[in-house]
Amino acid sequence: MSSDTGKPLLLYTGPTPNGRKVSVFLEELKAAYGSPEYDIQNIDISTNVQKEPWFIKLNPNGRIPVLVDRSRNNFIVFETAAILLYLQQHYDKEGKFGFNPAKDPDTYSETLQWIFFAHGGVGPMQGQSNHFNRYAKEDIPYAKKRYIDETKRLYGVLEIRLSQGRDWLVGPGRGTYSIADMNVLPWINIHKHSMVESLDEFPLLKDWLKRATERPGTKAGLAVP
Amino acid sequence: MSSDTGKPLLLYTGPTPNGRKVSVFLEELKAAYGSPEYDIQNIDISTNVQKEPWFIKLNPNGRIPVLVDRSRNNFIVFETAAILLYLQQHYDKEGKFGFNPAKDPDTYSETLQWIFFAHGGVGPMQGQSNHFNRYAKEDIPYAKKRYIDETKRLYGVLEIRLSQGRDWLVGPGRGTYSIADMNVLPWINIHKHSMVESLDEFPLLKDWLKRATERPGTKAGLAVP
Repeated sequence: MSSDTGKPLLLYTGPTPNGRKVSVFLEELKAAYGSPEYDIQNIDISTNVQKEPWFIKLNPNGRIPVLVDRSRNNFIVFETAAILLYLQQHYDKEGKFGFNPAKDPDTYSETLQWIFFAHGGVGPMQGQSNHFNRYAKEDIPYAKKRYIDETKRLYGVLEIRLSQGRDWLVGPGRGTYSIADMNVLPWINIHKHSMVESLDEFPLLKDWLKRATERPGTKAGLAVP
Repeated sequence: MSSDTGKPLLLYTGPTPNGRKVSVFLEELKAAYGSPEYDIQNIDISTNVQKEPWFIKLNPNGRIPVLVDRSRNNFIVFETAAILLYLQQHYDKEGKFGFNPAKDPDTYSETLQWIFFAHGGVGPMQGQSNHFNRYAKEDIPYAKKRYIDETKRLYGVLEIRLSQGRDWLVGPGRGTYSIADMNVLPWINIHKHSMVESLDEFPLLKDWLKRATERPGTKAGLAVP
């Protein structure tokens, strides 16, 4: 499936918001620390490669991304947010992008809260908007509207959070650019694709997106694969 | 909103699968340790109490459950799965229902992987099935079928996991009853409500549900509120 180049990490991914959460974080890590090096295996989800038996052995849910950590006994991690938390624990040695559960349990919990908010809300609902507005073979106005409305409502929740004197979703003071931001960023970044034409209703979220996507690491990660 | 009885925890909840994940875990903790004591504030979601300004201050997403830890400076936790992980860290002192991220990072990661699988998959998709099959004002066969099919597909992923010689989703050997199981259990438990008439297609999942719901703590938690 992929040649073993000896790089410590292998990422099975594709050009989707979930895939890009991980490449954004990997590129931010490389910008901060110079490592870890990783190989990319681009999975063609248009031909359902992710449903083939060899892939189901990696992730029984048949979804990208999946991370294999060659340097830790080929440990497999699926579910995007679990990959971010795994990489933060093992590769963000100075805790630049996340918080230690033992040393800073409250900020760690806040990080989890915002990660779960995005993972159970923004991702699934914006994904349904994409389905009904772009891919479904039937034209169903009720469902198109339902998921655009819900996507906007969820953006409004992020706007509330940022209105609490924050540049970033979690961390003390105005916050720290962390995996909580990276976990939702690639979805916000494709808002037009999901029929949210503009972020003008959400001015703080719009500024947040601009700040994040101007970072060299984040910019590089959004271009992978 | 609620009288302060001096119990360490206050849970804002309702008779929904997400609310019951937390009450199941709290009752399992009480069965194992005799604590923590908690107060319940039942939120009437039929009248949108969870969208009122006082509640939005607790959870900007306007959803139950929310936990307030009076014994830790009124720390607020929203998002069901974040509440489970918080309670496991602070109240499951012997690690009976979860795994320590520093001491057992791989099993901790597996726990997160299965929690995220349920949080981004089973919950949102089964929730959409309930919407289109029970509550939507329009009859939309395409959407009804889409979400029943997806719910069943996701149950099939749990079946694959259990087929790997397991009684429970995570933990060494045949596994340990943990927050990974409790995080998905209340959804599987209402499968009939979500138009999955029987679990006969998923025999291992059916056995898993029976094992879990026979536990006194879990049984008690499913009856709250």
